[in-house]
Amino acid sequence: MNTTVNGGRLWSNLMELGKIGALPNGGLNRTALTNDDRDARNLFSHWCREAGLSVSVDAIGNIFARHDGADGSLAPILMGSHLDTQAPGGRFDGILGVLGGLEVLRTLRERGIRPRRSIEVVNWTNEEGVRFWPGLLGSSVFAGALELEVAHGLTDRAGARFGDELRRIGYAGAAPLNGRAIDSYFELHVEQGPVLEDENVTIGVVTHSYHASWVDVECIGENFHTHTVPPARRRNALVGAARLAQAIDEICNAYSPVGGAHPTELEVWPNHRLNIPHRAVLRFGLIHPEEDGIAGMSARIDAAMARIAEETSLTFRIITTRSRGSLKYSEELSALVERSCKEFGVSSMRMPTRTGHDAFNMVKLCPTQLIFVPSCGGNSHNEKEWTSAEDCAAGAEILYRAVLGHAERG
Amino acid sequence: MNTTVNGGRLWSNLMELGKIGALPNGGLNRTALTNDDRDARNLFSHWCREAGLSVSVDAIGNIFARHDGADGSLAPILMGSHLDTQAPGGRFDGILGVLGGLEVLRTLRERGIRPRRSIEVVNWTNEEGVRFWPGLLGSSVFAGALELEVAHGLTDRAGARFGDELRRIGYAGAAPLNGRAIDSYFELHVEQGPVLEDENVTIGVVTHSYHASWVDVECIGENFHTHTVPPARRRNALVGAARLAQAIDEICNAYSPVGGAHPTELEVWPNHRLNIPHRAVLRFGLIHPEEDGIAGMSARIDAAMARIAEETSLTFRIITTRSRGSLKYSEELSALVERSCKEFGVSSMRMPTRTGHDAFNMVKLCPTQLIFVPSCGGNSHNEKEWTSAEDCAAGAEILYRAVLGHAERG
Repeated sequence: MNTTVNGGRLWSNLMELGKIGALPNGGLNRTALTNDDRDARNLFSHWCREAGLSVSVDAIGNIFARHDGADGSLAPILMGSHLDTQAPGGRFDGILGVLGGLEVLRTLRERGIRPRRSIEVVNWTNEEGVRFWPGLLGSSVFAGALELEVAHGLTDRAGARFGDELRRIGYAGAAPLNGRAIDSYFELHVEQGPVLEDENVTIGVVTHSYHASWVDVECIGENFHTHTVPPARRRNALVGAARLAQAIDEICNAYSPVGGAHPTELEVWPNHRLNIPHRAVLRFGLIHPEEDGIAGMSARIDAAMARIAEETSLTFRIITTRSRGSLKYSEELSALVERSCKEFGVSSMRMPTRTGHDAFNMVKLCPTQLIFVPSCGGNSHNEKEWTSAEDCAAGAEILYRAVLGHAERG
Repeated sequence: MNTTVNGGRLWSNLMELGKIGALPNGGLNRTALTNDDRDARNLFSHWCREAGLSVSVDAIGNIFARHDGADGSLAPILMGSHLDTQAPGGRFDGILGVLGGLEVLRTLRERGIRPRRSIEVVNWTNEEGVRFWPGLLGSSVFAGALELEVAHGLTDRAGARFGDELRRIGYAGAAPLNGRAIDSYFELHVEQGPVLEDENVTIGVVTHSYHASWVDVECIGENFHTHTVPPARRRNALVGAARLAQAIDEICNAYSPVGGAHPTELEVWPNHRLNIPHRAVLRFGLIHPEEDGIAGMSARIDAAMARIAEETSLTFRIITTRSRGSLKYSEELSALVERSCKEFGVSSMRMPTRTGHDAFNMVKLCPTQLIFVPSCGGNSHNEKEWTSAEDCAAGAEILYRAVLGHAERG
């Protein structure tokens, strides 16, 4: 495979960044605004400056590196993704999109190419939302979907404030945060699912996203000494949350593999052996290609809650529901990416994305395109996450061709 | 009710100590070696000195206050319990036994009574085991059942070391830790169950304890992105632990009210919305009057684990099992307490204890007697815990009469 971009350099950078926050089995634990996130940001910024790009940081910590175009009056094209990971997460989720964008800009500069439009690569802050929920944070603030002050006021489980941590690692910047025009946005990303590998296709041209919902449910019981609680007073909130988790898992069976319903978080109070728990909070996520699918699963879960409450005298309350409708990407940019694949000679297919991306925020600001490359075994958000060096290079090459073609527009 | 002890002073002390670490609804959150525990210890020590008792603290933080007897060569009688609480806990569990003992010694001194044997009251460190597991800690070290260095090395969930926290609150003392002879041990305690109230009896003469077991089980699954996990790869450790919790609750139904099986703690990793959990640890407690009952429940729980593992491809592993056999108290002291009740004119009944107490450690060292007073509604380890001022005074009076009678022995 003869790429214009330097696939070897891209791979070497991926492996180098994969050392910061490395886990024993090949994955990463590099959540937002930790020292490891700072070190990854520093290394990325260093590589950008080394490549001759001008680097700036905005007030939510997004890092932009720019290659100036010939016509400074035209809005820039933006490429990017994120350097933070899940815990455990992999070495490719997000990171490929940032380093792929850097590789595109390096290639342009090495070849002395100055397109009409400026082109930038961005590292969005806290895409994963592990340490500070919600995720997609930097791009949400950039797109005006979340107030800067609200984001700065978020706290992690140990009580540390987002704004304080951002300053601590030196990434509370001064670049204009939003309101500036962006021509278009391209995000290269690993698929995080098995479709491309199963279909033996190299490039996924993402046309739209799934509907998704996150729900936090509280179960309320009653404290009592574990060893003396009389049967009539036994209202164990952990048991209530456990029964609901099992019910959600069974509902998942009914909707799988098209949709999904997964309990992933549980907290219990007081969480001590000698005290029947009085409170539990269960968090679960729903995913489905159709809005009706989400509604159907939600109705079944509501019915399960009502049934368990009746059988146990426990009470349930939905604390929060966050929902995301299906987003459509740019038909023009999808066609552009497909042409780039054809010219370069790699296979492509149109597909939806089940997972969330910073591109979901950018679609509100400008034509946006998400480009997938295969994930071995579909693995993601685990230590087995892997995409071959060839596929990474192919993805960066398609990004290069699509962006360069688009940057010559007036 | 005309008591020798000062029931009004005892009640006023209980209410005063109930302000340290108070919760809004009447209960307490005063776990071991916190600032609130320190303040409660300081106030108790102050009261002891005010009463003319000599106060000493040993290397695990147990506080002893002594009224010297006429014959210094005789081993002392010990009374006591603990000032730390569950979170949430009540104002009587443990505290009544400490303040009841203090009230006995105050009464002796006020009346100028110097019995042959010395009598001491003790506040045992960390009976509840909320912040530092296991509980019954101070009495375990005193009785030689746990090494001092092991106890000092325990850490709480935030990583603080027991030994450091003990020094920080000023209660790492120099008094001889163990090896000194104790004549006998009396512990006044609230029942923490509904039996005395249901039977309309004032004093419970505890003859033996239930068999109990605590088990920590680990469930192992596999990380994956919540939104892309294929059905064949869905191994959600939270769901496995939830199914086991529900199975334990059903087994409890089969053994209740004679025995009990209660899941009370659950921790999940990584406990984040976008990641299928790979690990969960469920902790549960078993209680039964017969050893066979514990064995029967354990066998059913083992079978449930095997069934769930087979149905889900999750794996289960028992990390630790701590078991406690039935302990018998002193027939001689039980008869002494019954005689004291008859003399004073309050009703008594023999009964077992379902809950654990520092007396479980003392029974290894000397004749030991646990004395119960009623708990309103059987409430304990919650904010509704309540024992009337009359019942508290009656308990202290019986303690006074039993101990005084025993202290004149040669």
